[in-house]
Amino acid sequence: MCTSLTYSTKDHYFGRNLDLNLSYGESVTITPRHFPFEFRKVKAVPHHYALIGMAVVVDNYPLYFDATNEKGLSMAGLNFPDNAYFFSAVEGKDNVSPFEFIPWILGQCASITDAKKLLANLNLVNINFSEDLPLSPLHWIIADQTQSIVVESVAEGLQIYDNPVGVLTNNPPFDYHLLNLTNYRHLSTTTPANTFSSQLELGIHSLGMGGLGLPGDLSSPSRFVRAAFAKSNSVAGDSEAESVGQFFHLLKSVAYAKGLCEADEGKFEYTIYSSCCNVDKGIYYYTTYENSQITAVQMNNEDLDGAQLTAYPLVNKEQINIIN
Amino acid sequence: MCTSLTYSTKDHYFGRNLDLNLSYGESVTITPRHFPFEFRKVKAVPHHYALIGMAVVVDNYPLYFDATNEKGLSMAGLNFPDNAYFFSAVEGKDNVSPFEFIPWILGQCASITDAKKLLANLNLVNINFSEDLPLSPLHWIIADQTQSIVVESVAEGLQIYDNPVGVLTNNPPFDYHLLNLTNYRHLSTTTPANTFSSQLELGIHSLGMGGLGLPGDLSSPSRFVRAAFAKSNSVAGDSEAESVGQFFHLLKSVAYAKGLCEADEGKFEYTIYSSCCNVDKGIYYYTTYENSQITAVQMNNEDLDGAQLTAYPLVNKEQINIIN
Amino acid sequence: MCTSLTYSTKDHYFGRNLDLNLSYGESVTITPRHFPFEFRKVKAVPHHYALIGMAVVVDNYPLYFDATNEKGLSMAGLNFPDNAYFFSAVEGKDNVSPFEFIPWILGQCASITDAKKLLANLNLVNINFSEDLPLSPLHWIIADQTQSIVVESVAEGLQIYDNPVGVLTNNPPFDYHLLNLTNYRHLSTTTPANTFSSQLELGIHSLGMGGLGLPGDLSSPSRFVRAAFAKSNSVAGDSEAESVGQFFHLLKSVAYAKGLCEADEGKFEYTIYSSCCNVDKGIYYYTTYENSQITAVQMNNEDLDGAQLTAYPLVNKEQINIIN
Amino acid sequence: MCTSLTYSTKDHYFGRNLDLNLSYGESVTITPRHFPFEFRKVKAVPHHYALIGMAVVVDNYPLYFDATNEKGLSMAGLNFPDNAYFFSAVEGKDNVSPFEFIPWILGQCASITDAKKLLANLNLVNINFSEDLPLSPLHWIIADQTQSIVVESVAEGLQIYDNPVGVLTNNPPFDYHLLNLTNYRHLSTTTPANTFSSQLELGIHSLGMGGLGLPGDLSSPSRFVRAAFAKSNSVAGDSEAESVGQFFHLLKSVAYAKGLCEADEGKFEYTIYSSCCNVDKGIYYYTTYENSQITAVQMNNEDLDGAQLTAYPLVNKEQINIIN
Repeated sequence: MCTSLTYSTKDHYFGRNLDLNLSYGESVTITPRHFPFEFRKVKAVPHHYALIGMAVVVDNYPLYFDATNEKGLSMAGLNFPDNAYFFSAVEGKDNVSPFEFIPWILGQCASITDAKKLLANLNLVNINFSEDLPLSPLHWIIADQTQSIVVESVAEGLQIYDNPVGVLTNNPPFDYHLLNLTNYRHLSTTTPANTFSSQLELGIHSLGMGGLGLPGDLSSPSRFVRAAFAKSNSVAGDSEAESVGQFFHLLKSVAYAKGLCEADEGKFEYTIYSSCCNVDKGIYYYTTYENSQITAVQMNNEDLDGAQLTAYPLVNKEQINIIN
Repeated sequence: MCTSLTYSTKDHYFGRNLDLNLSYGESVTITPRHFPFEFRKVKAVPHHYALIGMAVVVDNYPLYFDATNEKGLSMAGLNFPDNAYFFSAVEGKDNVSPFEFIPWILGQCASITDAKKLLANLNLVNINFSEDLPLSPLHWIIADQTQSIVVESVAEGLQIYDNPVGVLTNNPPFDYHLLNLTNYRHLSTTTPANTFSSQLELGIHSLGMGGLGLPGDLSSPSRFVRAAFAKSNSVAGDSEAESVGQFFHLLKSVAYAKGLCEADEGKFEYTIYSSCCNVDKGIYYYTTYENSQITAVQMNNEDLDGAQLTAYPLVNKEQINIIN
Repeated sequence: MCTSLTYSTKDHYFGRNLDLNLSYGESVTITPRHFPFEFRKVKAVPHHYALIGMAVVVDNYPLYFDATNEKGLSMAGLNFPDNAYFFSAVEGKDNVSPFEFIPWILGQCASITDAKKLLANLNLVNINFSEDLPLSPLHWIIADQTQSIVVESVAEGLQIYDNPVGVLTNNPPFDYHLLNLTNYRHLSTTTPANTFSSQLELGIHSLGMGGLGLPGDLSSPSRFVRAAFAKSNSVAGDSEAESVGQFFHLLKSVAYAKGLCEADEGKFEYTIYSSCCNVDKGIYYYTTYENSQITAVQMNNEDLDGAQLTAYPLVNKEQINIIN
Repeated sequence: MCTSLTYSTKDHYFGRNLDLNLSYGESVTITPRHFPFEFRKVKAVPHHYALIGMAVVVDNYPLYFDATNEKGLSMAGLNFPDNAYFFSAVEGKDNVSPFEFIPWILGQCASITDAKKLLANLNLVNINFSEDLPLSPLHWIIADQTQSIVVESVAEGLQIYDNPVGVLTNNPPFDYHLLNLTNYRHLSTTTPANTFSSQLELGIHSLGMGGLGLPGDLSSPSRFVRAAFAKSNSVAGDSEAESVGQFFHLLKSVAYAKGLCEADEGKFEYTIYSSCCNVDKGIYYYTTYENSQITAVQMNNEDLDGAQLTAYPLVNKEQINIIN
């Protein structure tokens, strides 16, 4: 399972936790403008916006988990099992496979407005990348600097939701999460007044009691609420270090420590990596479960007018700063 | 507010989050064996076990927030407002001021068994360090490699609790937290069976639903439950990197992002630092709110037979590993 | 706000709490087979199944809150503010006003199967009963002896949901409540095992801890969960007295005591009446907030072949059985 | 398990739910002033205040579950397993057995002030009523018209707590429940403001959302909170019918429907009876699980100057008022 987030200070940030029980050998991958994007059904896009993000590169194709293009438009796919439904190809529609969806949108769109135009004729088709790499059941968050949307392909068809929260987790469908937030409207970051009883004196155990009722588990609805609360009440300086640092602190509130979420007998989901992309500057920051130091890759320090993918393997060993 | 934790893999670890709204200029401070520990009422201890921990050094006196001695005995003071009560000096008792308590115990004791002997005649006296540095209302967790206890000085007298959980947060008194854990006995790391109804089919939103009911707020009772659940179910390898990494992941589950806990109008408590000491090897690891990279200071790389404090200022600037 | 429930032992029962801040002068009202049902847009139904239920009779028209017909088909309208949307009349559709909906369905249908046929061409039109009696924003539960459905007219159109739970409360739309139940799948009526920690001994405060997590407030989603849990786990004998008694005990778990739910400054919603109809025998039982004794009205003791309404005013004064 | 409650309007009321999985043949029992109260260790009290309450009469001895004396002082014993500890007789102490405790206090005391004097020298001794009737592990609430206390005999000795809430349930010890209330200080009877986020519009599902977080299960800590909330926010008229009716409504919020609390495989605890005594007028009202009509027995309609117990068997069959 996963959590994705948008966040703004002076600049704009987009990122996510990837929560799985194993890594797929992903790397920070930059796709320059002239890498030829070919698609199974829709026509190729040989020249396009450059992308940076986390991807598994297979047969020289970047299977992006999340990415940002040079205009700042960002997108992440998150697990959506049982609900995700992909269709057969339909004549007259843009038949895009889910594994092509991120390149197809980010290659061509500079904004949510652009993306909505492309989505209007989209049909997400059930074409596997290969026999060995079947489709994952995903839904997507797409965000630019000012707004975000959620795209869900379900049995009833393609659903596009405005996302005023700027958070995405997993099941159930997105409209449930929005309605569910209502149940937490009373939470706050301050000590609540005693409204339980005008006749009883009730003490205060500690700061933080305004959050009583915030769910602490790792289920998808609970992470949605927790991420929304953290993001909505975040206070941070607007320097790059403070912004990026704060983004990772927000992601930690919904991260998985190993052991707390059993996927199968003895197999545990945990937060494989956390990412934070400065979408204005094209800098992709990440930490991994094994390495808490922030690592950064800068899109604009690469030749974006090339045609070859650049992939930086993850720095996945704890980088401890030993002082003495 | 704060959370302290013990944890064992192959080695033994002790650490804590310090949650405040400002830093006191603390540093990782090593007290060698012959630094002369003097006390206001009890007699001095000129030769003692060496200590490493986080301290503010004032007038060449290490005011430890948390520390570990060369035998591995560890101790941390955590906020305990309203409940902490310190007494006038009593003839025949060991009258120790709270600010002297960590040096007095860790200087002389190699184990909880040792500590319990000293505690038997202890009276925590209300003597301020100075006019400018009044006493903080604290309670303490003390731990060796096999067990831990909690010490609370309250109006009724000195209370010493065995701590089978190896966690300490803040108010209310410790016995409340132990009783309160009972309310969470049904939580688990696996997907719960549908016991709600034998007549209804109920789905599963996602992994993690076994934790439904785990409180997600930052109040002291909720952090106690969350830390206990995280620690109890932690799964990690037993290498030093994995153990230390996991310890910090556990602490993150009870850490404060800035903005989520308002102390005063516009002033927020957040997790100033997180520490993890390998108590067997005397290595003190920490991260700060501003720097997510782990920094390490090693007691045994200093001359422990000296008489002078060594203090390493915190590396408090984000150390980003820029790849390109 | 309100809660409606189906329940079966040897016989079948249907009932509800009506939660409001004032009474409308309702009475237990029997509509015999030849009372002429006229409608604003659809054609009249002069001969039909007889009905018993709670109604306000205005201008000799029974405005039913809930009712059961002689075949056992039952129906209740519950508050659905903000979401309920009623349409303009549409040519070719059965244009029924919400206030006519219960007579129109219960007059003509013997079962859910029958009702679904009528619903297929239904358009709920926004025609007030009168200027003084505008439409209430309602949704409906319809049940026969074996199944129940929910009917919601929202801006997107008429929604018909199968209701495997046999419970209806209020907002949000019904599909939310069904999804939301999933969050409570771990609740049970037995003492849960300690799955929190294999290392900690955790006690048991008391029986009833299997229900920890059951919401105790009066909001609509919480009442849905609580009623579903109570109904799903109910154990009772199957005599009429035991069945009816149990039904009222189930309703009490979601009833409102006066003072606990403020509608407006100093105005409180409370459970005006609770009803339980034996739908097989046509006996309508009720209690009121002021009178905890069960009162019964029997449809089959009236002349059902008549054309005149019979209305029994509520016995609304506490009937205390004084023994000495 | 059980819940006891005090409540005041113009008059003063005291009562309780008795929650068990079987009835003991209890009856409403009046003890007149000259019924000779004999005790195993302390000296007899041949002349005393008259009592009314629920008791099992064995060998002409009234084993009261709860009772009120003619001065209005009231007392109820509630289950306190594992924690209750009764001692051997101690020279110089008033050695009273728990089964004698209610007669001993209510026979001699007119107020809490009186009771506290007697309690000062009390030792609750472990003497069974008979081989067949061993002691139950109980704690007690005692209340007069203005205050209430809780008496707990635990291994550490006799504990007497002021009870500002006027509620008692079961485990853990009473001080836990008082501290625990603090976690619910934010609950209210009104719709909470959206303090979750200043950036998000969050709707309102329904009235009652101020109570979100109120626990809905039947465990003892949850019933304590729910009863305290209901009592603290109760709004009712002050006539006898309204006061008594409201008292029963408050008790319903913590009552058990059959099936929801499994004591043993297939054996369920449920609310055997609910009582409400007008302590000013000596009228004992009750309902039973099987009979929702209120039954009343009036102490002052008996000859209180006699020496014989009067016991009214419970009216335990549903008294349905059939209208037609």
